[in-house]
Amino acid sequence: MKFEILHSSSKSRARVGRIHTPHGIIDTPNFVAVGTNGTLKALDNKTVQEIGLQLMFCNTYHLLLQPGTEIVREGGGIHNFINRQLPIITDSGGFQVFSLAYGSVANELKSRGTKKTDGTVLKITEEGVLFRSYRDGKKILLTPESSIEAQKNLGADIIIPFDELPPYHIDREVLVKSLERTHRWEERSLQAHLKNPQNQAMYAVIHGGVDADLRQKSCEVLTNLPFDGFAIGGSMGKTKDEMIGMLTAMMPLLPREKPNHLLGIGDLESITGCIPLGIDTFDSSYPTRAARHGMALTGTGPLNLTKGEYGSRFEPIQKGCSCSTCAHFTMAYINHLFKAREMTALTLTTIHNLHFMVELMRRYREAIAADLL
Amino acid sequence: MKFEILHSSSKSRARVGRIHTPHGIIDTPNFVAVGTNGTLKALDNKTVQEIGLQLMFCNTYHLLLQPGTEIVREGGGIHNFINRQLPIITDSGGFQVFSLAYGSVANELKSRGTKKTDGTVLKITEEGVLFRSYRDGKKILLTPESSIEAQKNLGADIIIPFDELPPYHIDREVLVKSLERTHRWEERSLQAHLKNPQNQAMYAVIHGGVDADLRQKSCEVLTNLPFDGFAIGGSMGKTKDEMIGMLTAMMPLLPREKPNHLLGIGDLESITGCIPLGIDTFDSSYPTRAARHGMALTGTGPLNLTKGEYGSRFEPIQKGCSCSTCAHFTMAYINHLFKAREMTALTLTTIHNLHFMVELMRRYREAIAADLL
Repeated sequence: MKFEILHSSSKSRARVGRIHTPHGIIDTPNFVAVGTNGTLKALDNKTVQEIGLQLMFCNTYHLLLQPGTEIVREGGGIHNFINRQLPIITDSGGFQVFSLAYGSVANELKSRGTKKTDGTVLKITEEGVLFRSYRDGKKILLTPESSIEAQKNLGADIIIPFDELPPYHIDREVLVKSLERTHRWEERSLQAHLKNPQNQAMYAVIHGGVDADLRQKSCEVLTNLPFDGFAIGGSMGKTKDEMIGMLTAMMPLLPREKPNHLLGIGDLESITGCIPLGIDTFDSSYPTRAARHGMALTGTGPLNLTKGEYGSRFEPIQKGCSCSTCAHFTMAYINHLFKAREMTALTLTTIHNLHFMVELMRRYREAIAADLL
Repeated sequence: MKFEILHSSSKSRARVGRIHTPHGIIDTPNFVAVGTNGTLKALDNKTVQEIGLQLMFCNTYHLLLQPGTEIVREGGGIHNFINRQLPIITDSGGFQVFSLAYGSVANELKSRGTKKTDGTVLKITEEGVLFRSYRDGKKILLTPESSIEAQKNLGADIIIPFDELPPYHIDREVLVKSLERTHRWEERSLQAHLKNPQNQAMYAVIHGGVDADLRQKSCEVLTNLPFDGFAIGGSMGKTKDEMIGMLTAMMPLLPREKPNHLLGIGDLESITGCIPLGIDTFDSSYPTRAARHGMALTGTGPLNLTKGEYGSRFEPIQKGCSCSTCAHFTMAYINHLFKAREMTALTLTTIHNLHFMVELMRRYREAIAADLL
């Protein structure tokens, strides 16, 4: 992997870059769509490729349980298996396993308390995490080494070390211990990776929760290790302002010459706020999930296509939009398909939203190149 | 509409023909996919068009209730509204309304008794059928005239007169009355149509249930009216043999120079049996519904792609198949998508099955042209 900075804004830390991977270029800043099981929901990878999505996020946890990473390796690796010729990033599986243990941070913030484990996570030790497959009840030990082995089987362009996702509500003392263990796990992951690099790049994951000192510590520890880039993980607060505050403090601690990725955050407001801080890539299921709920993204805000008012709007979602949905179908028809509960509605809206994100990020790159932000 | 017979087999009543419609040619014999709500389930009409499906069946009953045929007319007619430039056929709505009243014939045959109405059909009179919309509870009177008005709003290339679908278990006396009323309804439909032909063609629907004499009577009555073609409706027996027997007796009673359509039957065995009898088009949701259940059609029979054995088959569904699914994806991947409950699995398998039907019918036409059947 090679990261090339084409232009640094004179107004902010924003930059236009290019990540060169074995499967082609990722122009940055860019949006990374989430294809958990090796497909974006309601789309096929041929269509996704046509839309021009340069980086796709697949989840090791899900692929480990179904179909199993050995099968993917036998099938020639993730690119061959899912038939995607463009870059792919996989995570470590840690996020999902710990979400099982603690509940997701989002749910936790809503319910204002740490969720109890649902029993699928059996044991967390220095070695790793023992959990039960929700598919067949089999016990699985996920460790830094087994996560990397799984990600070697998958063979994505960019991989992620095994980390712990601590709950939002956590004592500082416990958080310190979690962070130290995460650092040891990430280092073990890096070592496992470097034994057999397979032309993959590995991004560290910065942790430290909402504690600025621990975030700083995490940056220090991890930037001293030969990672190819830096992802930012874990909760950074309850509000976007808290997140922006934390990132404003952290980003200068990361090396300019390596790419950054913001894990799991890619709503429009966060993208707008984080690009000037120097974030290069954002993954989120927001645009695709919104589409499945009938929300179409436009330059003037999302439209709820399931609403009656769109039933007689015989025009595309967005005038001038060059996506295949807008080129062929009207809002009235898509509204009808949603009301008739046709899956086609989900596909058409997802195509539009994904295209919207691709175009949005292209415009951000142009704006940075012109020093507009 | 113009029907051109290119070749009549020397071995059977099978023929190769061409139906010329305002939206292009339908080569016959051909398969007609069912897009109830104006879309084939899990596909978009751009994709359907690329696969080469020449005729699509849409259901007036469903479109009447959602989005309403006025909306479709405002949207420029069904072709514009759903963005399909190729031919479309709509039915009268009668089939669905009477299925509500009597239960479907298939269900009836299984349960060996006439199903009671579920209360949605309120009254059947000489005028028509009063029923309650399952969407908003509104009372709707469907008559020959209102069905044709709805089909004029939709503006399909081929339309169907309003008919009664009698239950399978019916006294002969009641069946005679039903048939006579159906003939009167069909004639009223034809008159309504001819007042404003709008460049549409209308196929009569032959009824008479499992009674050969009544089927003969229906052919006599309806072929004396200026219909553009003849569809065969209603139950013709419990088994395929009974259906073939009935069609063998009936088909010579229909004019050779007009196209025939077999309503709602299009499984592979029936197609094989009915083409030599002179059936020109078959509509069925079988190939698309089978796909959604993981059944992929191949020359050697259907494969259940959800079965474990396909999880490591890194090859297309059918070698040499030119469909976009087989060109890009393996059975192992599709098996994985089914197991992971991804909608993409339904889309990919539906594309293959529809392409299979298009190719199968092309080969039938070639075989007839070569007098092989």
